[in-house]
Amino acid sequence: MSDAWQVGLEKTPANYVPLTPLSFLARTAEVYPQRLAIVHGAVRRNWGEVYARARRLASALARRGVGRNDVVAVIAPNIPALYEAHFGVPMLGAVLNALNTRLDAPALRFMLEHGGAKVLMADRDHTAVMRAALEGMANPPLLVDIEDAATQTLPPLGPLTYEALLAEGDAGFAWSPPPDEWDAISLNYTSGTTGDPKGVVYHHRGAYLNAVSNILGWGGMGRHPVYLWTLPMFHCNGWCFPWTMASVAGVNVCLRRVEPAAMKQAIAQERVTHMCGAPIVYALLVDAGPSFEHTVQGQIAASAPPPALIEGCARAGIELTHVYGLTETYGPASVCAPQEEWAALPLEQRAEMLSRQGVRAALQEALTVRDPTTLDEVPRDGQTMGEIMFRGNIAMKGYLKNPATTAAAFAGGWFRTGDLAVVHADGYVKIQDRSKDIIISGGENISSLEVEETLFRHPAILHAAVVAQADAKWGEVPCAVVELRPGMTAEAAEIIAFCRARMAHFKAPRRVLFAELPKTSTGKIQKHLLRRMVAP
Amino acid sequence: MSDAWQVGLEKTPANYVPLTPLSFLARTAEVYPQRLAIVHGAVRRNWGEVYARARRLASALARRGVGRNDVVAVIAPNIPALYEAHFGVPMLGAVLNALNTRLDAPALRFMLEHGGAKVLMADRDHTAVMRAALEGMANPPLLVDIEDAATQTLPPLGPLTYEALLAEGDAGFAWSPPPDEWDAISLNYTSGTTGDPKGVVYHHRGAYLNAVSNILGWGGMGRHPVYLWTLPMFHCNGWCFPWTMASVAGVNVCLRRVEPAAMKQAIAQERVTHMCGAPIVYALLVDAGPSFEHTVQGQIAASAPPPALIEGCARAGIELTHVYGLTETYGPASVCAPQEEWAALPLEQRAEMLSRQGVRAALQEALTVRDPTTLDEVPRDGQTMGEIMFRGNIAMKGYLKNPATTAAAFAGGWFRTGDLAVVHADGYVKIQDRSKDIIISGGENISSLEVEETLFRHPAILHAAVVAQADAKWGEVPCAVVELRPGMTAEAAEIIAFCRARMAHFKAPRRVLFAELPKTSTGKIQKHLLRRMVAP
Repeated sequence: MSDAWQVGLEKTPANYVPLTPLSFLARTAEVYPQRLAIVHGAVRRNWGEVYARARRLASALARRGVGRNDVVAVIAPNIPALYEAHFGVPMLGAVLNALNTRLDAPALRFMLEHGGAKVLMADRDHTAVMRAALEGMANPPLLVDIEDAATQTLPPLGPLTYEALLAEGDAGFAWSPPPDEWDAISLNYTSGTTGDPKGVVYHHRGAYLNAVSNILGWGGMGRHPVYLWTLPMFHCNGWCFPWTMASVAGVNVCLRRVEPAAMKQAIAQERVTHMCGAPIVYALLVDAGPSFEHTVQGQIAASAPPPALIEGCARAGIELTHVYGLTETYGPASVCAPQEEWAALPLEQRAEMLSRQGVRAALQEALTVRDPTTLDEVPRDGQTMGEIMFRGNIAMKGYLKNPATTAAAFAGGWFRTGDLAVVHADGYVKIQDRSKDIIISGGENISSLEVEETLFRHPAILHAAVVAQADAKWGEVPCAVVELRPGMTAEAAEIIAFCRARMAHFKAPRRVLFAELPKTSTGKIQKHLLRRMVAP
Repeated sequence: MSDAWQVGLEKTPANYVPLTPLSFLARTAEVYPQRLAIVHGAVRRNWGEVYARARRLASALARRGVGRNDVVAVIAPNIPALYEAHFGVPMLGAVLNALNTRLDAPALRFMLEHGGAKVLMADRDHTAVMRAALEGMANPPLLVDIEDAATQTLPPLGPLTYEALLAEGDAGFAWSPPPDEWDAISLNYTSGTTGDPKGVVYHHRGAYLNAVSNILGWGGMGRHPVYLWTLPMFHCNGWCFPWTMASVAGVNVCLRRVEPAAMKQAIAQERVTHMCGAPIVYALLVDAGPSFEHTVQGQIAASAPPPALIEGCARAGIELTHVYGLTETYGPASVCAPQEEWAALPLEQRAEMLSRQGVRAALQEALTVRDPTTLDEVPRDGQTMGEIMFRGNIAMKGYLKNPATTAAAFAGGWFRTGDLAVVHADGYVKIQDRSKDIIISGGENISSLEVEETLFRHPAILHAAVVAQADAKWGEVPCAVVELRPGMTAEAAEIIAFCRARMAHFKAPRRVLFAELPKTSTGKIQKHLLRRMVAP
């Protein structure tokens, strides 16, 4: 009998096509060629034009010898050229490597060499650091200068501009889906704080599924949403939103810089409906004063949104959804899926609900919290800590040229995040800490996040981070570094007392420093720098 | 270099999980266990309960020896047991065969034998026809009676009820995704008008993708939509909507019969947001008089919605989206994706736009109209006819035990629909006819659909169908069979004149008969019966 279900039922070109998010652009250009696709200053292009430009890029690169598994590196802020590269590069079977614009020359040099980039496209604000990164390189990539109208600040890398490259290409270039949906689509280096960056490889299948999962996670995005590019496209390929936006035939509103005035203006003028970012992005926006009358859906990640921010956003007309993920999971792979009854809760309790990393994303297959050694699941008691692990199609292909680290990351059939969490009775996961951020004081674990959340309730505190400080008696004690709101004051002793009134005394900070918090380009606080700051 | 993109980047259980729509139910039961999942008369069950019942079903069937690629047949209207079978049966790797409730015993017998059903579950309204179908069968399936509260009309098939079967199973049954996403999930027999029915096999990958494509085709369905089950679940697995509804954690409102009063009541009481069906379903609803105040999204297929119906639906608060597909494409694989500017058009023009089959569905890969012999694409002139062909992951695995017919259906790398169409300048496809429905009169092709659309503009005509009638002089001439609106009159000569005033004279019907139109269970007009009716 079983044979009957195989014979004559094989895959054919008619009924099996490898999944690729490039298909979304092709469809949208077919169906909505005249609809607005991208806005960048005075530049407004429709989907027909974006598709034509992406095909020109693919064609021009192919003519210059770029092909399957060749790396094309790009360093640029959120501008149309980087958006187009998300399609034009993989149309060839080549691999997009979007570089973090905040990195220094040695880190960028490492990435160019490790990935073996055959082409480097650089925005004119970033040519100086790239020139330093390229210096003395044996096989330098083909250099392409992106001449964005908004900037011509630095000398070009060479004679070839992005527009000249496009002009070499054919707008009718006949691309095909990759032969295998497991083929690489992009390469994203982690910004680890120790050791060399790791090259996280994404495949077409995962990019396709996460792009769709983004839509479902928002309960659908409606027809033709307008998306503000506050989240960097170089960060996990903008959580796959370049591909999502092609699928929904929406509008990409570009931003060179995440500045409050520019955000406010874009939201009001273009009637932005959706955006993503770290808490700092929303804090900037809220502090700038709301000036739009419609509702904006905002995905927020990197750290839990504090109650004051949730309230501020609500007043400004921004509805927050908390998501969580890592470079290894294409961006968000969990979502704090809202439950209807939360709307009726008082703000503090609602914030408590929203602060959780939540449940697996719509198209992710599993999210679990386990003992990293025994792989036993932790009970749903909100107390027992374990490591967050994911399984499914929204997990990287692996680390490039790093099979041992890849195998360790996937050991036991789970992707191990390194983040420690508890599971609440409703199945929602809440991060307690990165393993390395746990403070061990007198043998007791202290979650630095828990202390930070208490600090955030203090009315004068804008930002706060807690790290371990060596202590002769206790081994470690918590030390807080805080930034106060403009025009407000507070003293260390008063802040410590505030915390002791709200949590176990051993968890309260022993010391409070006042300083600006060092952050990465994606808004994460750099705790390794804080540890140096508080070292005795 | 290329090796670097393979080694250490293989599929692992952590980063590759076969796609299956069963995953949607598992996630929704995890995240929204208490939310309402299904309503059927007095029965209201939440997602936790539906998941538990589906797992019980899988477990009980497994204990009775059902396994991978075993067929479980079900004959039932749109009731919870059939919904549960869409999950419980494939959880085992078994194949769901939902039988058309309008078929006669010989056709059902053919399906049971051809598919080799190991289990037959029958609603108590359908036991008589099944008893006849089973009579004298050498290896009859295990018989299970579904004792729906709403009906106990006929004697049971045997001693085992559906609820007793569930009681044998384990609500914690540990199912796994299929080993291969290409594995069969269901078997759906076409209701062809000639020859034996063909057994269309769906796989998990296609069911997953079409379930998601349904959501995207509606621009997202919002959080927790309420879906009215007017479209039969036995028809292309209800266009994959059982799985769609699990993904969006919505409410399934069951209906044993598509009756206007029951539909009106359900829409108002449960605040239905979405429904699907043939034009006749919407016509019944509109004629019954609107009685709800919110907007309902309606997908409409089988034939183009006539202008009067579009207007009637708009007045009733139903927003229609025209979709098109076949059993072989899991239901809709094209959608008449709305363009914003259509809203401003006068009704007749808007209806003209909406009457088209449109463009490929969100997650389908290609839709094309080609010469069936040369495979040349037809120009976008709205005139040149060709055959509609699809390519992508929303095309069947093939016909069961029928490799020659499967190969013919996929010849040249395209699934050939047998439907003839033109392509308009905007790329939207419009069906002119099934190949066999074309009328050839004096050597000229006449599209029966074109004549029907003209007839639909006549104020007294409710339903109309046009078929060829043999003619000594012209070979064939068009003959119309019409149903008039209740209380209205019209004469044949006047109707013919009405048509001649609006189209080429040779296309106008030569003869008009007044009769009730014979329809299939899915609302399609049975033209083969009409041809017999008009035969001289």
